This record gives sequence, C-alpha cells and structure tokens, in this order.
Amino acid sequence: MTLLRSWVASANSGTTDFPLNNLPYGVFDAGAGPRMGVAIGDQILDLAAVDHRLDPELFAHPSWNAVMAAGPKVWAALRARLTELLSDEAHRASVEPHLLPQAGAAMLMPFTVTEYTDFYAGKNHAVNVGTMFRGAENALPPNWLSIPIGYNGRASSVVVSGTPVPRPWGQVKGPDEALPRLAPSARFDLELEMGAIVGQPSTGMVSVAEADAMIFGYVLLNDWSARDIQAWEYQPLGPFQSKATATTISPWIVTTAALEPFRVSTPDRERPLLPYLREPGPMLYDIALEVGLAPEGGAETVISRTNYREMYYSAAQQLAHHTSSGCAMRVGDLLGSGTISGTRPDSRGSLLELSWGGKEPLTLDTGETRTFLQDGDRLTLRGAAEGPGYRIGFGNCAGQILPAADLPAWAKE
Amino acid sequence: MTLLRSWVASANSGTTDFPLNNLPYGVFDAGAGPRMGVAIGDQILDLAAVDHRLDPELFAHPSWNAVMAAGPKVWAALRARLTELLSDEAHRASVEPHLLPQAGAAMLMPFTVTEYTDFYAGKNHAVNVGTMFRGAENALPPNWLSIPIGYNGRASSVVVSGTPVPRPWGQVKGPDEALPRLAPSARFDLELEMGAIVGQPSTGMVSVAEADAMIFGYVLLNDWSARDIQAWEYQPLGPFQSKATATTISPWIVTTAALEPFRVSTPDRERPLLPYLREPGPMLYDIALEVGLAPEGGAETVISRTNYREMYYSAAQQLAHHTSSGCAMRVGDLLGSGTISGTRPDSRGSLLELSWGGKEPLTLDTGETRTFLQDGDRLTLRGAAEGPGYRIGFGNCAGQILPAADLPAWAKE
Repeated sequence: MTLLRSWVASANSGTTDFPLNNLPYGVFDAGAGPRMGVAIGDQILDLAAVDHRLDPELFAHPSWNAVMAAGPKVWAALRARLTELLSDEAHRASVEPHLLPQAGAAMLMPFTVTEYTDFYAGKNHAVNVGTMFRGAENALPPNWLSIPIGYNGRASSVVVSGTPVPRPWGQVKGPDEALPRLAPSARFDLELEMGAIVGQPSTGMVSVAEADAMIFGYVLLNDWSARDIQAWEYQPLGPFQSKATATTISPWIVTTAALEPFRVSTPDRERPLLPYLREPGPMLYDIALEVGLAPEGGAETVISRTNYREMYYSAAQQLAHHTSSGCAMRVGDLLGSGTISGTRPDSRGSLLELSWGGKEPLTLDTGETRTFLQDGDRLTLRGAAEGPGYRIGFGNCAGQILPAADLPAWAKE
Repeated sequence: MTLLRSWVASANSGTTDFPLNNLPYGVFDAGAGPRMGVAIGDQILDLAAVDHRLDPELFAHPSWNAVMAAGPKVWAALRARLTELLSDEAHRASVEPHLLPQAGAAMLMPFTVTEYTDFYAGKNHAVNVGTMFRGAENALPPNWLSIPIGYNGRASSVVVSGTPVPRPWGQVKGPDEALPRLAPSARFDLELEMGAIVGQPSTGMVSVAEADAMIFGYVLLNDWSARDIQAWEYQPLGPFQSKATATTISPWIVTTAALEPFRVSTPDRERPLLPYLREPGPMLYDIALEVGLAPEGGAETVISRTNYREMYYSAAQQLAHHTSSGCAMRVGDLLGSGTISGTRPDSRGSLLELSWGGKEPLTLDTGETRTFLQDGDRLTLRGAAEGPGYRIGFGNCAGQILPAADLPAWAKE
C-alpha cells in the first residue's frame, strides 16, 4: 500500500494524520450543531450532506453507533464510496462545498460508549508495576500469562480529547497514618492506551477470529489514574474511584480497514495459551505512540515513545476472553488495551513507571521536574501507523489538569 | 401507616406483595407487546391506558427510565394519582377495564440498566469470606470499615427474573494444577442482594442526603458468581468473568416512597467514617429476605433467611462514595448492595458461606445435599417489608441453572 491521492491537497502531504488511506470517523460541531464527519487532510467532510448512497438514518444522529450496528457490509460500502468521492476529480464540484476546516470545528464524542472495560495486557507495564509493589520475583501475578486480565471501568467517565480533567478527591491513607483522609489525589497519573471499539454485538462465547471481526476501529485512550486513591481502595475488588474521574479518547475512530496493512503478531507466548485465546493470525497493529507533557504556559516535553505492538494480548484476544463466561457484548463497548510500555525507561506509558513510583523525578525540557501530574499540566497522546509516504494518524488525545474542586461544606470535618 | 384499601379486592388480603401501599412499577407483556404497568393485588394496571394526567411520552416506551428522568415531582404526582384511581370507587368503571391478571403476563426488564456497580458492603458476608480466605485475624480488608468497597459490574449481564442462567465456562485452576483449564464452573453460586436504582443524574461529588434523594427504588438482585473462575482471575484487578454470566433482578421496582415507613439506621460505626459518608438519618430499610432452592422436579427448601438491615453501608452511602472522584451517575444506574448475610449460619446470603467454602454441604428438604448449584436447580429470592396488616413485597427474583453450553470446536484442545 502506498499513498492514495485525493483532490483535497492537504491529504497528500505525506505528513498529515489523515490521508485518503485513513478516513477516520468523528463527530464535529462547526457552529451548526453536532454532525458526523470524516477527516481528510486538514478538512472534515460533512457526511449528512454528501451522496453516500446509504440509509440517511445512519447519519441522522450525531454518533457512529448506528453505522457500527449496520455491520461490516455497510462499513465497507461507506469506505469505498468515500474513497471514490474524495479521489475522483469528477466528484469534486459536488463534494467540496461540504468540506470544513478542522481548525474551525470542535470535536465531540464520536460514539456513545455502551460499557467500558479496561485491561492490563501490556507485559512491560505489568512487570514494572509488579516489581514496584511486590518485588521482581513476584512481579507478574500467577494468572497473567494465561488471562488477559481486565476489569470493568466506568462508561460515564469517558470524555473526548480537550475536555479538562479536574484533579479528583478521594480517600487516601499514607503508610504511617492510622486512618484515611479525604484529599485531592497527590499521585494523579496518565496511562497511555489504545481503545478498541466493539462494532457488532455478541451473545455467548466468540472465537478470537470472530472477535477481531467485531472490532470497528481504534482510538487513543488515556486512562487517568489516581495512584494514591487506588493503593488504598483496590484490595480486594480492584480499582474503582481511582479510575472514575475521566478517561480521555481521541476524537477520530481509525477503522480496522485503514489499519489493515499494519497488522503484526503478538509476541511469542511464554506459556501456552488455552485454545480459545489462540490467534489465527496477526491481530496487533504497528502503531508508534508518544506522550507529551506541557506545564501550564510552558513548552511540551515528549516523556515517552512506545508502540502498540508491545502488547502481550491483542484486543481480539481480550474481547474473546470477555465473552468466555457468556457475557453479552454490545455495539459501542470500549476496551482499553492496558498501559503500553516498551522495554526502555523512556518508553514507559505512565508516570508511575517513568518516575519509578515517584522516586526518580523526570526533568522536563523546561527544567521543571515531575513525579506525578501538576495542576495546569497538559497531556497529549499521539499515535500513527507509518506507511511508505503516508501515515495513518489518530489526531491528539489531550487533556489539561484542573485544580481539585472546592470541597463542599458537608464533606469537611 | 396501615393498609390502604383499594377497590381491587386482591390488594386488601394482607398477604399480597402488592397492596395499595406498594404500587411497584414494571414492564409486562400480556400478548400485546411490552407495556408499562403497576402491580395491584394480583392484577397489573396498564399505565398507557389510564388517565394518569402526566405527559403520555413518559409511558410511550416500555421502560421506566423516562419517568425516572422526569424527577421526584413526577414520581410523587404519579403515585398520588394512582393511589386516587385505585382507592376511589368513583374511578372504578374507567380504570377496571385496564387491569390484567399477573398470572397471564410475562414480566420484562423494568428499566434499561445504564451501568451496574456491585458492592461488598455487608459486614457478616465480608467477615465470613475473609475468614475462609485469609483467616479470622485478617478477615476484613484494612479499608473495609472506611469505604463501601465496590467494583464496576457488567450492565449487559442484568436479566429479569425467570431468565434461565446457563452454567458458565471459564478458566479455572486447582491448587495442585500447574496450568489452568477451560471448564464449566464447578462452584457456581448465588449472592442475595438488593439493587438500588439511580433515578436522577449527578456530576461531581454528592452528599449522602443528596444520594438518598436520587434513588428511585429497589429490586431484589441475585449476583450469580462462579467462585472457581473468580479465585483464579480476581488478583490483582477484581472479579470480571466470574460475575458476568448473569445478574438477575426482580421485575417490580419498589419505590422509596413505598418503603419510607420502613427506614432503619445502619449499625453503629466500629471506626468513625469520614464526613462525606456520614448519614443524616436512617437510610437502610427493614426488608425480610429469603432464598429458596428447588432441585429440578423437587420441592423448594428455604436455605437462608436474613434482612436488608444487616448491611453496614446503605445504598445512599454507596452512591455518595461512587461520586467521590467526580464520577458522573446517570438515570438507570444500578447499585448492588453486596451479599446480605445475617449473623446466624442459616442467615447467610451465598452458598459459599452456607456450605463454608464447600466443606459443609447443606441438606435440602428433599434429602439431597448441596455445596454449590447443580444443573436444574431453581433459585428464588423473596423479600418484603412487613407493616401492620400489610406487606410491601418485591415479587420473586428467580432463575434456573441450565447445563453449560457445548464447547465450540475452536475452544477444544
């Protein structure tokens, strides 16, 4: 695959996130209310306005859930038609009036999140966290090499890139304190993840191959995490309020069709998997990822560079495991990959790992240091699959940390 | 409060679950498709057909979410109007044609579950389980007396009473096995709980008093649990597939208005709570509960009798904690109380506790014994608040265990 050329000039730059090869789907508001659109170069094509040849009802509500529910044939037909409309000069006159500059549009949530599940399926992350908390000998839990470990998260917490993230309050207890306190989190962190969007429903157990075909596309995902709240609350039933403040996703759904040339295999298994989790082919993707941190009013430092291919389990494996007990999956379910850390210190996907539990502060390009996030910090995740002469980019997944809200009187001593 | 008399004779029996004092809300199908109804004696009143004096749109879709979203003034107006219609003989001629016998109606899900959260807030249950797994000295986790411990469950798993429950497959590993196996759960269990239904949304932290006012009503809830799957999967991020097969709720939403006379306080605190969790008044309810187990083709044995007042934390406290990190709550969120066990051996709310981890089999009235559930077993939860000459009942919360599905070829070795 090489660059597919469009009559939209900015799509052919080779450096844009959104060449014709990509065609990611979002919901935008350029002043006329929320509408469904596709990104092309530095423009957005208004999908309700073009001759897409599909049921107009699919584009009547500003959310991609109806298109997802319509199934893979509709997904393929829409992509083929958009490719035709945006490549063939013959369509330019009718289509060009429905392009709007991305710079003038606010991006909204691209789909309604039905349920949100977060996994813990990056081995380097699991080993790093396990080493910090349990020592190198017991870093990986006994089940880790057999199960893509996951927990249910909070769908109501998922927000689109650009939404400010207030520092959460929560119960925390220091090791020398007898009783917990209600306090703003002092160890508020990011987690660099990919989010897989379930585009077709299931009941009963599905195979990894079936699961792969159910996935409509991917977004970047930042699973904001309050480490101090988590440490006190998470035994015995897992993270709860520590993960419920916000989960930020990038605004463009990059489809599996666009990512197809970038499939890669999961790493060799260190322990054989049970048959229901074995992959019939490559189901990860080669997607370069980075994390930028900009203090308020300061320049950004890239604090981590890694790749989605570092995962031990693919989203298809996670989804297959998710159905193993008979759990029904629905259109719009979102699966967080788990934190994506590489093997090098500068490829870790969380400040918990980058600062090694807060013991080794990072020095930013501004000269400031960081263990965990400060008020005013702006975090930006970026990602792209790199092809010959083009890139399949995700756009930004950004959020700025606001100071904790004032505590209501009834919550004070 | 004494029995309120209705012109529907069966509502005045003193033994019905559904006197005029109750007026619980459900969705039924008596052959003409799903409709919203209220139970009165052994009848259901079709709400779309009566002169309720509210916006007909509230009753146009077969789910109680719209009425919940309309807010407490609408809740009060509907209850007052139904009380008038069903007590005053003057309305009998116009209302009676819209009564249908419960015996001829199938009950459907009364509301759309937005998200489902399950708690672990019964102290006797937590002590029993902790003693079995960690010994009596370490039975309660360190955070337990400070936090109503909860985890996010799977909304797609929630089903209405009567839905069969297939035994789940899952990864299990015995203590003497080197590697896990995929197997039907051999330790499939019930959990006797109450479910609180969030009827009003929130953003940001809410007080316990505000949380109490957000709750629309309660149902009985059976959080089916595969103990062997849970044991292998739950560290470090909590229960996942072990709880995702099914969660059964009773079909009638008993409103907080009906339960108002039965408010009781949570027990004395063994450790002071942080101010945000302190209750300004009694927020539990005195609801007698029982669990019946009937082997296939055999008579039922009541295997447990307990009361919702045994909880250490109320649903209002759980909901307030749920919002502490800024987590948004939405109309239709469902909160499971956690397993409700009394202090006596025959008041425990799960087979795990009743059979003490499978070591002390129960003998049923049929002469059979049980540690965990057998295929064909029918479990029924019942509950009622008992007033002078009347009861506020919940109806049945029942489910029968089906054999595990056949394993697909791709899941076999």
